[in-house]
Amino acid sequence: MSSQTLVNTLGFFGWNSTAEAVKDERTKEEILNKRKNTIGSTCQIFYSDNPFMVSRASMQYLYDENGKRFLDCISNVQHVGHCHPTVVEAISKQLATSTCNVRFVSTQLADCAEQLLKTLPGLDTILFCNSGSEANDLALRLARDYTKHHDAIVIEHAYHGHVTTTMEMSPYKFDHGSSLSQPEWVHVAPCPDVYRGKHRLEDSELRNAEKLYEAGKQYSNDVQEILKNVEEKNRGVAAYFAEALQSCGGQVIPPKDYFKDVASHVRSHGGLIVIDEVQTGFGRIGSKYWAHQLYDDGFIPDIVTMGKPMGNGFPVSAVATRKEIADALGGSVGYFNTYGGNPVACAAVISVMKVVREENLLAHSQKMGEELEVALNELKQKHESIGDIRGVGLFWGIDLVKSRDSREPDQRLALDVILELRQKYGILLNADGPYTNILKIKPPLCFDKSNVLETVSALDQVLTHFNR
Amino acid sequence: MSSQTLVNTLGFFGWNSTAEAVKDERTKEEILNKRKNTIGSTCQIFYSDNPFMVSRASMQYLYDENGKRFLDCISNVQHVGHCHPTVVEAISKQLATSTCNVRFVSTQLADCAEQLLKTLPGLDTILFCNSGSEANDLALRLARDYTKHHDAIVIEHAYHGHVTTTMEMSPYKFDHGSSLSQPEWVHVAPCPDVYRGKHRLEDSELRNAEKLYEAGKQYSNDVQEILKNVEEKNRGVAAYFAEALQSCGGQVIPPKDYFKDVASHVRSHGGLIVIDEVQTGFGRIGSKYWAHQLYDDGFIPDIVTMGKPMGNGFPVSAVATRKEIADALGGSVGYFNTYGGNPVACAAVISVMKVVREENLLAHSQKMGEELEVALNELKQKHESIGDIRGVGLFWGIDLVKSRDSREPDQRLALDVILELRQKYGILLNADGPYTNILKIKPPLCFDKSNVLETVSALDQVLTHFNR
Repeated sequence: MSSQTLVNTLGFFGWNSTAEAVKDERTKEEILNKRKNTIGSTCQIFYSDNPFMVSRASMQYLYDENGKRFLDCISNVQHVGHCHPTVVEAISKQLATSTCNVRFVSTQLADCAEQLLKTLPGLDTILFCNSGSEANDLALRLARDYTKHHDAIVIEHAYHGHVTTTMEMSPYKFDHGSSLSQPEWVHVAPCPDVYRGKHRLEDSELRNAEKLYEAGKQYSNDVQEILKNVEEKNRGVAAYFAEALQSCGGQVIPPKDYFKDVASHVRSHGGLIVIDEVQTGFGRIGSKYWAHQLYDDGFIPDIVTMGKPMGNGFPVSAVATRKEIADALGGSVGYFNTYGGNPVACAAVISVMKVVREENLLAHSQKMGEELEVALNELKQKHESIGDIRGVGLFWGIDLVKSRDSREPDQRLALDVILELRQKYGILLNADGPYTNILKIKPPLCFDKSNVLETVSALDQVLTHFNR
Repeated sequence: MSSQTLVNTLGFFGWNSTAEAVKDERTKEEILNKRKNTIGSTCQIFYSDNPFMVSRASMQYLYDENGKRFLDCISNVQHVGHCHPTVVEAISKQLATSTCNVRFVSTQLADCAEQLLKTLPGLDTILFCNSGSEANDLALRLARDYTKHHDAIVIEHAYHGHVTTTMEMSPYKFDHGSSLSQPEWVHVAPCPDVYRGKHRLEDSELRNAEKLYEAGKQYSNDVQEILKNVEEKNRGVAAYFAEALQSCGGQVIPPKDYFKDVASHVRSHGGLIVIDEVQTGFGRIGSKYWAHQLYDDGFIPDIVTMGKPMGNGFPVSAVATRKEIADALGGSVGYFNTYGGNPVACAAVISVMKVVREENLLAHSQKMGEELEVALNELKQKHESIGDIRGVGLFWGIDLVKSRDSREPDQRLALDVILELRQKYGILLNADGPYTNILKIKPPLCFDKSNVLETVSALDQVLTHFNR
């Protein structure tokens, strides 16, 4: 069913999305004012000088208040496409059937858990939550209750969520003006970033397997050092937390064998490995369902957390682990999460997985990744301002620098590029990383070859325009 | 539009809820087995000896795997009725239009915030989250950042959510076999329960305004004592947290003036008042939109958290506060919650508020509360096993005791009653409270007079049957 057919179908409710958008005659300024007066100032807006009001969204496109179309390279949540009809249909049907919590039995919960576990060999149990933050918080509780240790190792610049505990585990938050400070139970390991991290490679070595292996070893040894220091303080590490590919921290792809080595160190000290796939799962990397499976080396985390793409916009997240870890969760009151695992959320996830399967989105994402690699490499050869490009599937980072030699981040250029792309080319891109200089490409997986070419060509023109 | 019309409408998707339920020929045992094999054992099931598989739900009724109808007195989340067509329609439409996050501007976000604030005089700012747990966690962060204090006062038996920090603030969790222990920053005040608490009233005094006032004073003085002790330890209280009416803790209604007195003590020590309305808001108490407005005495909390009923099953929650508190939230990265405040969640909330308004659910809830009061008082006169009944609107507790003199809780009887009500009368009721002896009535607000009579008559027969 096409998106338009669905809109027609929903017209049966006496409704038409385009017409309704037109009917609402209030101006953007009026809505912005109302927002300003009712929502705190800490809730930031994209393009804050001239914000974007979404009238509707469809697949890889957003439409502003005037119906103008924009290509969306930002929305990794709307994984199979904004308002994908299969997902809208599945959620709408279940909403009209039952929304009962997990204290009641539903086929959706069991089917959803089973289908997720099929993608995660070595793990056998799922606990559902509503957000990536809740999932990471639960992962920590599981690790603490199972290991009887209390501490966590996290990666420099990591982001694991917005609740108190996950913020305390997020240098991305506590190093950036947050009132929260790093607690004594959190230990920060260097980010395994061979371009900007502690152990760097030369430009010529960035794709050299042997050099990457060596750097990976150095980074995993850093984790081993932390483990020793923690033990000397008579503390114990419950879990090592890492995003499978660091996202907000700068689109970082850890070297092969890094996670395997870290796992061996952490486990020998009685800790668990938690891999945060909240931004990277469900085929974003193309070759595999999960980013931690990238190297196909048999690395299996003890706990995997997932979120964003899983409901295509419906709030749902989960923790996958082994039964003995799940069952170690303390408290006679058990684990109950009002919405977690409700049949609507599960129907959403099942439908997302169905679309990924039926539309061959893994193969598609991989192919688009290959296209992007070629096109971005060409772009890099042309523009000195591109220090590095890195990515897999539909997860890419373009590291903008003031000079390739110094690798000094060019935050100003990144911001200029983003504004120009939106203004002149109708393309929505974002910048992130510790220095906000890394252009992130992480669009819905329906992003196609013409979108790749359009984006790279626009980038080419914009970088030429700024002549940096 | 009736629920059946909507089902017919959705039939346009080529789908019919009843037919689909029949088409799924798998047995309950098969689904239960699959659930057992994929979901941890800590995820508990209602009626675990003979669980309930929901094939569909409509307004105040659930239908099991055989299509048998049950009257639902449990589901306070499905506030205006399971699968209420207005809410299903609003969510489905918005799902097909846009699910973009709050970094984009939407009319839904601003309208939703505005409508919520109209019910909360004295508060002017809303921050959205996904669950009550996230809302309470955010409330604590706001209070800490605003007051520059760190500690929290909570009430005995309180429950504020399942993430690490809110569990640390929930004696309901940390006193009941959880591996979490009470941290040094959490201080527990006596529950202002005049029937089972520290300062009790005689049976004859339970409705005596003067005696209630005295007890309330004693309980608020207890909070003042804690504040002094905290200050002597050179610590400071960021917030006093309380459920407007304690729910899991035993359906407790605090005496008039208790919150006002507490607020005056807490504020004089530089702390804020957070009222948790996650279970009690949106007209459940009948006379007012929020339970903390019960006494109409001008009491205004600094922060109100809300959740469960607000999306009628769609995961959404929020924190309402004053602008200066919201803007004090630390961190240059601001407040961002992937799904929090997305236009679908906001459309859900707007539609729930619309139904509450159009179906006069406050007046209805109040009327049903009056009916329940009369009927339950009669029941109490007849059955010695009922120690106390208490409630307002559609929020009631029946406190079962082994003896009225000792007030010893009768957990066994509560469990027997619940099983018998389900088995013989098709009525779903639950027990809670620190001793799991309090029957909770908190149905969807469409619960009507015949439902009241049916429930109380069944309770009468069941209590007679057990002859206790």
